[in-house]
Amino acid sequence: MNDRRAVREAEAGEGDEDFALDPRTVEAIVAAVEAGDADGIERLMEPLHPADIADLMEQIGQGDRTRLLALWSRGIDGDILTELDEAIREEVIDALPPDVLSDAVRDLDSDDVVDLIEDLDEPQQEKILAALTDADRVAVEQSLTYPEKSAGRLMQRETVTAPEDWTVGQAIDYLRGAKELPDQFYHVILVDPRRHPVGYVTLGKLLSSRRAATLREITEDSFRPISVLDDEDDVAYAFNQYHLISAPVVDEDGRLVGVITIDDAMAVLDEEHEEDVLHLAGVGGESAISDGTLETVRLRIPWLVANLFTASISAFVISRFEGTIEAIVALAALMPIVASTGGIAGTQSLAVAVRALATRDLTSANAGRVVRRELTSGALNGVVLALILGVGGTLVSGNPLIGLVLALAMIVNQVVAATGGVMVPLILNRMGFDPALASGTFVTTLTDVMGYLAFLGFATVILL
Amino acid sequence: MNDRRAVREAEAGEGDEDFALDPRTVEAIVAAVEAGDADGIERLMEPLHPADIADLMEQIGQGDRTRLLALWSRGIDGDILTELDEAIREEVIDALPPDVLSDAVRDLDSDDVVDLIEDLDEPQQEKILAALTDADRVAVEQSLTYPEKSAGRLMQRETVTAPEDWTVGQAIDYLRGAKELPDQFYHVILVDPRRHPVGYVTLGKLLSSRRAATLREITEDSFRPISVLDDEDDVAYAFNQYHLISAPVVDEDGRLVGVITIDDAMAVLDEEHEEDVLHLAGVGGESAISDGTLETVRLRIPWLVANLFTASISAFVISRFEGTIEAIVALAALMPIVASTGGIAGTQSLAVAVRALATRDLTSANAGRVVRRELTSGALNGVVLALILGVGGTLVSGNPLIGLVLALAMIVNQVVAATGGVMVPLILNRMGFDPALASGTFVTTLTDVMGYLAFLGFATVILL
Repeated sequence: MNDRRAVREAEAGEGDEDFALDPRTVEAIVAAVEAGDADGIERLMEPLHPADIADLMEQIGQGDRTRLLALWSRGIDGDILTELDEAIREEVIDALPPDVLSDAVRDLDSDDVVDLIEDLDEPQQEKILAALTDADRVAVEQSLTYPEKSAGRLMQRETVTAPEDWTVGQAIDYLRGAKELPDQFYHVILVDPRRHPVGYVTLGKLLSSRRAATLREITEDSFRPISVLDDEDDVAYAFNQYHLISAPVVDEDGRLVGVITIDDAMAVLDEEHEEDVLHLAGVGGESAISDGTLETVRLRIPWLVANLFTASISAFVISRFEGTIEAIVALAALMPIVASTGGIAGTQSLAVAVRALATRDLTSANAGRVVRRELTSGALNGVVLALILGVGGTLVSGNPLIGLVLALAMIVNQVVAATGGVMVPLILNRMGFDPALASGTFVTTLTDVMGYLAFLGFATVILL
Repeated sequence: MNDRRAVREAEAGEGDEDFALDPRTVEAIVAAVEAGDADGIERLMEPLHPADIADLMEQIGQGDRTRLLALWSRGIDGDILTELDEAIREEVIDALPPDVLSDAVRDLDSDDVVDLIEDLDEPQQEKILAALTDADRVAVEQSLTYPEKSAGRLMQRETVTAPEDWTVGQAIDYLRGAKELPDQFYHVILVDPRRHPVGYVTLGKLLSSRRAATLREITEDSFRPISVLDDEDDVAYAFNQYHLISAPVVDEDGRLVGVITIDDAMAVLDEEHEEDVLHLAGVGGESAISDGTLETVRLRIPWLVANLFTASISAFVISRFEGTIEAIVALAALMPIVASTGGIAGTQSLAVAVRALATRDLTSANAGRVVRRELTSGALNGVVLALILGVGGTLVSGNPLIGLVLALAMIVNQVVAATGGVMVPLILNRMGFDPALASGTFVTTLTDVMGYLAFLGFATVILL
């Protein structure tokens, strides 16, 4: 961490913030927008990467965005559109003149068009489909027939293939003569006469081999075709696990229908991580920093309302012990300590388990061992915390029995928290649900209820 | 979500679990290990990818792992070692016969060796460095002089370059004649006579262009050299943001010293996400599902102890209101509801902010707007929750004033939670700290204290 900070500071010292959008650039563009200075906008925008322009449009306010689009709509191209967050993509598309929109989408590969339109509403989808050439439109419509979040949606249909019996020389001559090649490709896929992929060769191998060598001689060892129906999460996992750069996609008959490249897989991985962080925190759907107030409320309120009800369970548990609290009112102040520390322990165990499920490191092969480890480490944590809290509670309250009650309740709740934190996502996962979603609420409800129950229960038995 | 589940189920139906290690394979290997069946192990291991073998070794228990290594140490190669989790890497390296270790590390590219040894202790580092050829050892030792987590550690030193004035034909002839090329390369980097990179060409372009074309004609538009001192997080960001596949790395004089490829960047991104999830949940360092019990305790106890003290602040606040609670003991049962719902709201706002900081979507350009949005959406959430809780509290307690106290406290705490959730990481980030680390404790302490204070404060004023 220290080294990392040192690096960061060194960079800041050099004024070297090459990556990411410079906030000063954003300020300058906003100033130009507010001055209505179209030339200034053009000049400032020109050196920016489409991804940075998209970020800029997300970071400025809606008013500035509308003015910017009015002054600079001709600058928007397909690459910028695909980089835009969904939250404002519709707004931008609506603001574009039809000919700008047509030009923008015609430049894109089929997978980018699919990505662009899959979450738009019908009229906007129609607008974009109408702008495509016939061949592209058919390709996009075909992709849209695959389920959401499937490999079929993610793939590009443009592939570079060669018959398996070609030589390196034939392949190079073919590539040199090809009229249109995809923007990015890293392999030539070998296909048999029925278009079943049988292997692939990297361009590096192709370039470094003799012209007379056959493609079959230089194919890669590992070759993993992906099915169009595979879940995009599985695709991203495969790319990450096996260090793939591109992978052929086959239909149900094993025929080559497209190719997925690593940048798409990386985007999926990134989205998945975002989902995990947000779901663990109880934020639904695809939340973005550019969301408006109402969208923010809509994404968060369901979880808050749910928590209102689960918190009522704790309230009910406590209310059963009103007699105990009435007898020793100091208990009311102490009881949240056990519940709150349990909540933290449960969240820790939960985060590790959710992450391990996402990376396929927690499976039925080791689930039993992991649960046992959580149980013992929960007990150990509980003992350490119980010692501190028992002594502290005794000193503060002047009553060693109160210290004892705190200590016992802490041990029980730490064990429940650590074990619950791993069991809840395991069970959700086994039932086919996203283990990150809802598990936070389950676990904190569990630790709250157990925390209050154990503390007030022991208090009733020991102190009264 | 539904579509995704449908895809998952369809796959399960087809028995198609191509990716990730099959738990049945793990079981079969464990059985072979326990039977001492070396041939059986060999047969089961043979088709597995090194990444899957590493996962397998992480998933089985320590006893089985030791027996497996005794029976199958010759199967361990460099690729498996680099895939292994740090938690067990040292254990495996210690168990390998010296000649197996030598063979394993000699096969690796320099970046993989660096990755392998940077976290090992001195004697193990020496063992591995001694196994390398002189040239490789110098390269690795040079890389280790760069700061941890810097681009210099991440890059491989093997590069494929060409003078900027070459033609396509010259480059292809050179590649075809080259004795040793890196395992993976996607670009030829053009360098000037002093080895300053001036551009790069993709292999796809190289293959599809006329032999007489100059390399300069076919260079890519976007070209972003990375400095050896750049933070690896910034490198991963650049790859993700600009869809890079590989990028040249330059030293302080702008000379080419290496290249970083997307698989390394993807691994960093993945690690960073892991850190975010775990730090948000209060788990320190590099926790892994294969950690032992004591390591698990060590990584979690600091946070739990810290929480013990912050929870004591809440206890102190409550204790100031013992008179109020003594007068109306039902308050003790109701007070956690406001605090707990505030904790959820704070965590939601926090997760969105931490994620947006990580993706550079939250900057000084929009921080003000985001804080204002959190404030208003917090107030709106507060009003909705206040209505539900106010009515519910009135019905349950039979006292509309108790409903009013709950409602007012809820609104105050929701505003504090939403605003605090975004302010805390922003401030930590501004101060140069990791915004995910510790912010969870800050925010929940804030919402707990405010929740109890607002509730008991309003109760004292309104009810007594």
